[in-house]
Amino acid sequence: MVYILGKAHVIIKPFDISTEVPPGKTVLDVLREIGIPIRSDCGGIGICGKCIVRIAGPVSAPSTNEIKLLGQEKIKAGFRLACQTKILSGKIEVYIPRESRIWKYRSVDIGFERHVSLAPAVRKIHIIVPRATLEDPRPDLDRILCHDNECLEAEIISLEVLRKIPDILRSCKWSVTLVLHDGKILDVECNDTRSKTYGIAVDLGTSRIVVHLVDLTNGKTLAIESAPNPQQIFGADIISRLTYVIQRPNATQQLQKLVVQAINELIKKASSGTGINIKNIYEVVVAGNPVMNHLFLGIQPRYLGYSPYVPAFGIPLVVRAQDVGLTINDNGMVYIMPNIAGFIGGDAIADAIAVGLDECSEPCVLIDIGTNTEILLNNGRDIYAASAPAGPAFEGAVTRYGMKATNGAIHKVFIYFSESEGDYEVRYEVIGNVKPLGLCGSAYIDAIAHLYRLGLINKWGKFNKGTVTKRFVTRNGEKGFIIAWNRESAKGEDIAVYAKDIEAILLAKAAIAATFKILSWKANLKVEEISKIYVAGSFGISLDPENAIAIGLLPGINPQRVIFVGNAAISGAKLILKSIKVRKKAKELARKVKYVEVAAEPSFRRIFHEMLCLP
Amino acid sequence: MVYILGKAHVIIKPFDISTEVPPGKTVLDVLREIGIPIRSDCGGIGICGKCIVRIAGPVSAPSTNEIKLLGQEKIKAGFRLACQTKILSGKIEVYIPRESRIWKYRSVDIGFERHVSLAPAVRKIHIIVPRATLEDPRPDLDRILCHDNECLEAEIISLEVLRKIPDILRSCKWSVTLVLHDGKILDVECNDTRSKTYGIAVDLGTSRIVVHLVDLTNGKTLAIESAPNPQQIFGADIISRLTYVIQRPNATQQLQKLVVQAINELIKKASSGTGINIKNIYEVVVAGNPVMNHLFLGIQPRYLGYSPYVPAFGIPLVVRAQDVGLTINDNGMVYIMPNIAGFIGGDAIADAIAVGLDECSEPCVLIDIGTNTEILLNNGRDIYAASAPAGPAFEGAVTRYGMKATNGAIHKVFIYFSESEGDYEVRYEVIGNVKPLGLCGSAYIDAIAHLYRLGLINKWGKFNKGTVTKRFVTRNGEKGFIIAWNRESAKGEDIAVYAKDIEAILLAKAAIAATFKILSWKANLKVEEISKIYVAGSFGISLDPENAIAIGLLPGINPQRVIFVGNAAISGAKLILKSIKVRKKAKELARKVKYVEVAAEPSFRRIFHEMLCLP
Repeated sequence: MVYILGKAHVIIKPFDISTEVPPGKTVLDVLREIGIPIRSDCGGIGICGKCIVRIAGPVSAPSTNEIKLLGQEKIKAGFRLACQTKILSGKIEVYIPRESRIWKYRSVDIGFERHVSLAPAVRKIHIIVPRATLEDPRPDLDRILCHDNECLEAEIISLEVLRKIPDILRSCKWSVTLVLHDGKILDVECNDTRSKTYGIAVDLGTSRIVVHLVDLTNGKTLAIESAPNPQQIFGADIISRLTYVIQRPNATQQLQKLVVQAINELIKKASSGTGINIKNIYEVVVAGNPVMNHLFLGIQPRYLGYSPYVPAFGIPLVVRAQDVGLTINDNGMVYIMPNIAGFIGGDAIADAIAVGLDECSEPCVLIDIGTNTEILLNNGRDIYAASAPAGPAFEGAVTRYGMKATNGAIHKVFIYFSESEGDYEVRYEVIGNVKPLGLCGSAYIDAIAHLYRLGLINKWGKFNKGTVTKRFVTRNGEKGFIIAWNRESAKGEDIAVYAKDIEAILLAKAAIAATFKILSWKANLKVEEISKIYVAGSFGISLDPENAIAIGLLPGINPQRVIFVGNAAISGAKLILKSIKVRKKAKELARKVKYVEVAAEPSFRRIFHEMLCLP
Repeated sequence: MVYILGKAHVIIKPFDISTEVPPGKTVLDVLREIGIPIRSDCGGIGICGKCIVRIAGPVSAPSTNEIKLLGQEKIKAGFRLACQTKILSGKIEVYIPRESRIWKYRSVDIGFERHVSLAPAVRKIHIIVPRATLEDPRPDLDRILCHDNECLEAEIISLEVLRKIPDILRSCKWSVTLVLHDGKILDVECNDTRSKTYGIAVDLGTSRIVVHLVDLTNGKTLAIESAPNPQQIFGADIISRLTYVIQRPNATQQLQKLVVQAINELIKKASSGTGINIKNIYEVVVAGNPVMNHLFLGIQPRYLGYSPYVPAFGIPLVVRAQDVGLTINDNGMVYIMPNIAGFIGGDAIADAIAVGLDECSEPCVLIDIGTNTEILLNNGRDIYAASAPAGPAFEGAVTRYGMKATNGAIHKVFIYFSESEGDYEVRYEVIGNVKPLGLCGSAYIDAIAHLYRLGLINKWGKFNKGTVTKRFVTRNGEKGFIIAWNRESAKGEDIAVYAKDIEAILLAKAAIAATFKILSWKANLKVEEISKIYVAGSFGISLDPENAIAIGLLPGINPQRVIFVGNAAISGAKLILKSIKVRKKAKELARKVKYVEVAAEPSFRRIFHEMLCLP
């Protein structure tokens, strides 16, 4: 490692990101620049005490606010407030404890994002070309390409650009900006427009579309917009949407239009909100699962619906925005992240790129829990991937009081035996601090973990007959455990976890756990060797790692090693947008991943059955 | 020079082309393969005696037909019939006399064409990919790209291709042909279609469009079609068409549509006539002058109409056929030859490439005489180019009985003094052997040369007053010389050359001669150093080199050194279609040509005035 004299070399844990910064900045500044989301509820003025970090190395002395909020003991142990602590020169280690970061991912529209040096595919060059004369009558395009004694070997992306060059050159007095995309001329603009260079990252989810507008001159995210995927009216999950499309000849085009319209609206919102001209957006990077990618490009996804589940393309694609119907610059380009297999797509690659899965020095795992759960595993040598058909149980689709993690959903549950009451008591948290409407996936996991710990259910998830509690309820002949009483609930009825709900959740977890087991077999990896498990996706927001491990959804590692990374797909897409080096890496990663089709494994049924048990 | 043992090394004069061939072929076979047009009126069966060549080197003994048709004396002097003479092994020189080749260019739709090794931009690969299985579920596109342990780094030209790949793969039982264009995937076709690979070369002339359909598997020309340029209704020459377009906002689009429609019809004719599916035509190469190129691409050519006459582009362009409206394969490409300057375009580059102007070992010159005359000059080191605004005099537009070189035009004139008649007599040839309708450019040149030689006109082109002949005529106060009497003419009136006609022709020749003079000054080249003058274009068909030199249209060199190459533009376009190596050469040639704007030369007016004289 080479240190630059006078600069501070900051290493951020547990993400293992390092950066060189000039001394004098606060730790919060540095974390914000790199893009690590950290709590700073008061906006960084030193009064809320939420941006706690643990620091080793040369930094400024504690402020009076810090001493007041943290106390001398904690400060002695290295705890500081990020907003109050200034970096001096030398090597500094900053550890961000869970409580300072986890809540940052409340919104599923952002995620953990590594720092990259800016090197986007879109590049602008401002040139003042010598006016054409009888002595120098070179053609306009050649005049633009050859300047300052250098000639660009650049193709023109479209005839439209060429058609406007002669007029632009003359009306702009020979001062123009070339917009290059991957070395090709994407546009020619009047005067110096270098400061206006923007791109869009899209997380094209089955249920939600997230759009980030990025300033490509400094890498900053200027606007975030999201909306439900309008294709949902044709099926909530991938399989039902596939079925719809396969059965109807023009449905692919219909669904393509819908999703493109939705993205266009989000781009419009993002740009009008920031006062940015849509013509200055030159590239869109799209991360989606294979079915979403197919539908976005208008490719019939029929063969994803049948064994052996083959996508039309794997390699990353670059197409014209016009060809798919996206309204950015008329000659703007769209980069579609690579697919690996039928159910491992650009979103999983984006996740992996965002967390740096390919760079783990010790074995690490990435899990994106959803209707379709993707697992990527780096055993230190190779990267393995598999997809688990978990189904929509975690998203509330199968359980009686199940709902998505939106306002009114109980997202955290704690069950205990109250000696004073002589019965089981429940504490819970509701998203939005309103009266509860139902339970989201994380609440079911909490509940099952606690019911099992307390012996209220057996290892098959069945209610034990011996227990007596007034929280037991029987409805339509089925037994349940009440989480919220009718008087507490917004529905006016008891919100309970029923036997069938537990069964549905255990089926989903068995699919994921069995897939993980087969994958770790293939990779010859023992659970205790895993250094980190990154949990991506909206499901990670409220998930309690201990409970997830307790029910066997996550492998039995130290819960401290579970890192929630939020919407890593959008973060990965942004990295790809910001750097062609990362783009190249993503392509290589996609190429070298060893895909394991678990459904083709003879032992899958047996292991799946084993995994239905609670550990 | 390395000779291959057992093979024949054939050098063809005066073109200085050499080729290696296996012994046993006839000279006619060899010439046909190389693409040198030679008369063979009987089809090569040895009875017409038109394919006379002069041979030195080891060839078969004369046939009885040859002895009958040529006589022992000529055979002793080396004259043979190309169709009867078989090549043996060793070094053989074949000289093709003017009379065996010149008439080949009767039609302006073909021209002199060098031999090139086939290396087209369009390439097909037939592959049988392993069927997708659960054990090998690679994506379709990746499966196509990686075969036989090799992966192509190929982009997809259009989404349309990707959209059809999944269905094609399965319906064609995994046997498909990849169509590659410059390394990109242009199309994917069912089964093995390698034998069906075609391209189109277009000579996009101001007045005439010529289309050649070429089989890209063997380089053979399968069909030739031509038609008038329909844009002519908006002006016969470039300047009037420019004026029309500049003054009207939508005229560029209007003229673009017209010319594209015309090319589409020619392509359709050519393909239906040969039973070729238009979908198997993958590339079109277009050679046109800058204004034609602009209008073909829908680029407003406004700035070509004003000093300093700057084209929008110089470098060669590759655009999608769909984007300009050409109907070939849906994803077919169009290559537009490079422009050098405002009035030196892809047609001139095609001419130069066809004759190998860049490869002359001794100084050589190319002249394409037309409304706008292009002159390219290689002084052995650099290539210089200029354009002369000759105007339409040679095409019959200004002279009283002037007409184009079509049926009914007198195209050759010989004037002499008949002692028996005691007066001047005229012999002439009419195209189509019909009664004459008028005189085409070459006839005027012949007439002026003879009138000057006979002292009937002075060096200013004025009729001498002293001479008496019944062929003198005065009409509307203007003096003329009758070429064809009214009784011989299809018009029922005397066809004569008038004083004003001579003036118009001398103005046109002065423009060309002055341009040549300035160009040779710039290149520091003396006339006597010129080894060859290639005359391209329709005008060369009937031109008598001695007379062209006599009036000063061509520089005063040995007439044997004047080589008529016909429509070299279409030949050059075909070379570009057949070989990416030639394509690269054309690009380099265009880049290194030194363009001279003669109008900007202070001495131009003075020299132009001098050149109005007859030498």
